[in-house]
Amino acid sequence: MSQPDTLTLIQLAERLDARLQGDGNQRISGLATLQQAEPQDLSFLANSQYRKYLADTRAGAVLLRESDAAGFGGNALIVADPYLTYARLSHHFDRKPKAAAGIHPTAVIAASAHIDPTASIGAGVVIEDGVVIAARVMVGAQSFVGARSHIGEEGWLAPRVTLYHDVQIGKRVSIQSGAVIGSEGFGFANNQGQWEKIAQIGGVLIGDDVDIGANTTIDRGALSDTVIANGVKLDNQIQIAHNVHVGEHTAMAACVGISGSTRIGRHCTIAGGVGMVGHIEVCDHAFVTGMTMVTRSITEPGAYSSGTAMQTVADWRKSAARLRQLDGLFKRVQQLEKQLADVTSSAADSSDA
Amino acid sequence: MSQPDTLTLIQLAERLDARLQGDGNQRISGLATLQQAEPQDLSFLANSQYRKYLADTRAGAVLLRESDAAGFGGNALIVADPYLTYARLSHHFDRKPKAAAGIHPTAVIAASAHIDPTASIGAGVVIEDGVVIAARVMVGAQSFVGARSHIGEEGWLAPRVTLYHDVQIGKRVSIQSGAVIGSEGFGFANNQGQWEKIAQIGGVLIGDDVDIGANTTIDRGALSDTVIANGVKLDNQIQIAHNVHVGEHTAMAACVGISGSTRIGRHCTIAGGVGMVGHIEVCDHAFVTGMTMVTRSITEPGAYSSGTAMQTVADWRKSAARLRQLDGLFKRVQQLEKQLADVTSSAADSSDA
Amino acid sequence: MSQPDTLTLIQLAERLDARLQGDGNQRISGLATLQQAEPQDLSFLANSQYRKYLADTRAGAVLLRESDAAGFGGNALIVADPYLTYARLSHHFDRKPKAAAGIHPTAVIAASAHIDPTASIGAGVVIEDGVVIAARVMVGAQSFVGARSHIGEEGWLAPRVTLYHDVQIGKRVSIQSGAVIGSEGFGFANNQGQWEKIAQIGGVLIGDDVDIGANTTIDRGALSDTVIANGVKLDNQIQIAHNVHVGEHTAMAACVGISGSTRIGRHCTIAGGVGMVGHIEVCDHAFVTGMTMVTRSITEPGAYSSGTAMQTVADWRKSAARLRQLDGLFKRVQQLEKQLADVTSSAADSSDA
Repeated sequence: MSQPDTLTLIQLAERLDARLQGDGNQRISGLATLQQAEPQDLSFLANSQYRKYLADTRAGAVLLRESDAAGFGGNALIVADPYLTYARLSHHFDRKPKAAAGIHPTAVIAASAHIDPTASIGAGVVIEDGVVIAARVMVGAQSFVGARSHIGEEGWLAPRVTLYHDVQIGKRVSIQSGAVIGSEGFGFANNQGQWEKIAQIGGVLIGDDVDIGANTTIDRGALSDTVIANGVKLDNQIQIAHNVHVGEHTAMAACVGISGSTRIGRHCTIAGGVGMVGHIEVCDHAFVTGMTMVTRSITEPGAYSSGTAMQTVADWRKSAARLRQLDGLFKRVQQLEKQLADVTSSAADSSDA
Repeated sequence: MSQPDTLTLIQLAERLDARLQGDGNQRISGLATLQQAEPQDLSFLANSQYRKYLADTRAGAVLLRESDAAGFGGNALIVADPYLTYARLSHHFDRKPKAAAGIHPTAVIAASAHIDPTASIGAGVVIEDGVVIAARVMVGAQSFVGARSHIGEEGWLAPRVTLYHDVQIGKRVSIQSGAVIGSEGFGFANNQGQWEKIAQIGGVLIGDDVDIGANTTIDRGALSDTVIANGVKLDNQIQIAHNVHVGEHTAMAACVGISGSTRIGRHCTIAGGVGMVGHIEVCDHAFVTGMTMVTRSITEPGAYSSGTAMQTVADWRKSAARLRQLDGLFKRVQQLEKQLADVTSSAADSSDA
Repeated sequence: MSQPDTLTLIQLAERLDARLQGDGNQRISGLATLQQAEPQDLSFLANSQYRKYLADTRAGAVLLRESDAAGFGGNALIVADPYLTYARLSHHFDRKPKAAAGIHPTAVIAASAHIDPTASIGAGVVIEDGVVIAARVMVGAQSFVGARSHIGEEGWLAPRVTLYHDVQIGKRVSIQSGAVIGSEGFGFANNQGQWEKIAQIGGVLIGDDVDIGANTTIDRGALSDTVIANGVKLDNQIQIAHNVHVGEHTAMAACVGISGSTRIGRHCTIAGGVGMVGHIEVCDHAFVTGMTMVTRSITEPGAYSSGTAMQTVADWRKSAARLRQLDGLFKRVQQLEKQLADVTSSAADSSDA
């Protein structure tokens, strides 16, 4: 039975170390937003722009900061950080199937692989020579784990994940379906107009507590390893090229592309669709807004953007035409400045005269 | 035998409710463009810019509008909308293998799953607890269908599609290889610089007659469902984040990325490479051109763009430099306007004098 | 044993046709950059900006051009093109597992498929009717090869590659995990606001010596074939729409999207994140920089760009606002020019007087 347990507010208050305000016997079986919550749901108020929904919520209880609880007549669980409390409690209500320990009979496991007995290996999984799967790891159905790769304790691979050979993964790492780790990067030497492939002999090193999104690709290093440090969060359809280094606790939203050998610092936030050229460095605590084209290193913490704002097509066509004439406009202004200086000085001359 | 049947023009005219002009015994075994058609092919003229190819086509017959048929000496099938007729007829010539009903012996099916006897389940497929597969559905080889997911009548999953748990799919839905539906979206709470994962406990709700392209990803909802309404068409490598809502009959070309909780209206067209920020709304009948960065809601139907036009690198460098100097140029023009006003008024003063 | 053999510099010099300078008995077991090399590693100097690392390298030997060898005191192998020599030698040190010939017992092979006895078919592979797999091809675990597809000699499919039906692949082609070749492109006819699917009845034709990256998608043709010519190199997460033609020896970096029916010439270089609209032509030897939006044909060889440079968000906001006022600025300058002309001519009048 995958239905999560029902909890009373008394039980929740104890579990969350929260102060209870209201009816402790109210039973909670789900989580929902203030607008969508039903009486069996717990909700939360984290962002003050949603306070307007508090009065009318049908939620059985609401996670609130002390400062928001005062005027609220419903049931409340009062905590220091409602969003963080919601984040932690959310796992209780997750209906994601948890596989039992053991190896599915259809999995194909190399004799030299070492699978911890508490690990779970799904249907159709293929595991090659020398692989090490640590305690409580779950490898989803139809995933592939290449030779000599390691997956640290409590890792989770969704179904249909690919790890090439020599990929080292830390503890508590989650990887969503379709992700490919350790693919051969884009390395070619040009020989008189034709491209000759360079073997990609480095590996991939992934730290602890990393999350990797669906259909994201991380190339192995050309010579040394591609490195994703502890606590990094990568969303879906991100492309990380060979020898990139992503620093601790940096988060990237979907569809980001990082070219080869670029180094990104710690605690950076890279919004969706950003592209970075290769061989640059981004310092710690940089924030890059969506779809920015990063063509040079970022050396100072702060927020960075490129691109133009959206317009109607009619206005945009005008802007685009104006942009092509911009160099000419600078020259016209320079000419005006010169002419005006002549006029002014000749006026000055005449008044001097 | 997968070769499509040959049809005479008489048979085709009857089937398509077309008026036949020419030799009804001409046999047709394929479809081709006007330029590439051979005598055994049927072609079509839908876009008037291709009319120039009509005179010289080698096609065995051409689908034509009444107005285009007058001067044409070859065989023709005259219909109201040649492109739509071609679209419908194209399926007759599709050599895509059709799997027979039944479950491949290598598939792994949970005992509690319900598979309609007219459905086809391919080699290596994994189906989890509580799944429902309706009549005439085809699940391609090596696909994965997570717990409690439903696939409506006549659905088609290409090989290697992933559905996570609790994904509800309507009737006649096609999903191309590598697509991932129901992945866990990018939800993290920041705790003193480190990211804590938020369980994604919503599902995905997909309507009838939806098409989903290769390697496209659709995240499950954080709390409630991500929704793809009836008739939506999604091309390859699109990323739909958690809690997005895409309205009926909206079409998106490849490589589009939609951030979390954004709502897109009905009958919109989103061209390739467009990115949208989260928590905005796009009204019905909006058209967004390729690679546009949508950073605010669109409230009026119409066409929208951003970005700059392509130039040679030499010109582009000049433009880029000029853009950085643009604020300065505005100040220089303001200064000129002031100086010129001074000159003009002093000139006026002197002539007054 | 997957550890590569150790070679002496004498052996390497002979193999690479290099001139040996230094200790021929030095043993080499790996490759590394000048900065990271240890005494058992061979390194190389290809780009003169790395010459500064030559003096202090700990490498057991360095591949050098004659001109760089003069002042170097360490062991060296002197060759005409160190980068190309490194590229070729890199394969010797590649620890990628090589599968033995034969068909894995868990593979599902149609009776009518022809698999060369020297080919290797991995665990869980599915091969449909009429497929032809040539000599020395390696099909990675869990890959899918659709009906009537052909893979030429010495091809390599990484694990979890999908080929739809009627995909013809030349010799020595490498395809990384998650790639999808032959998916059904985005073809729909609009019927009163609703989209009707057009069967995609063309195939895909891929030449010799092509490389295709992880999670890249190549759609089959709508009527005729999508074509990827000899020697083309495609990086990860590229999208190639139906009926695109990519010319010989063209290379595309990651995250490029090419819309339907566009023709790209030979020896082009398309940098990461570029998007191209459909139905255009790009001539031979075009170079398009990262994230450029290509909305028209390119008819002259050369380098092309679009987009704006990255700024701090504060500066970018100012630029964005200025861009919206740009049309107004042109009008102000025009007005200034007119007024100044009036002032100048009236001044001329007065001096004439």
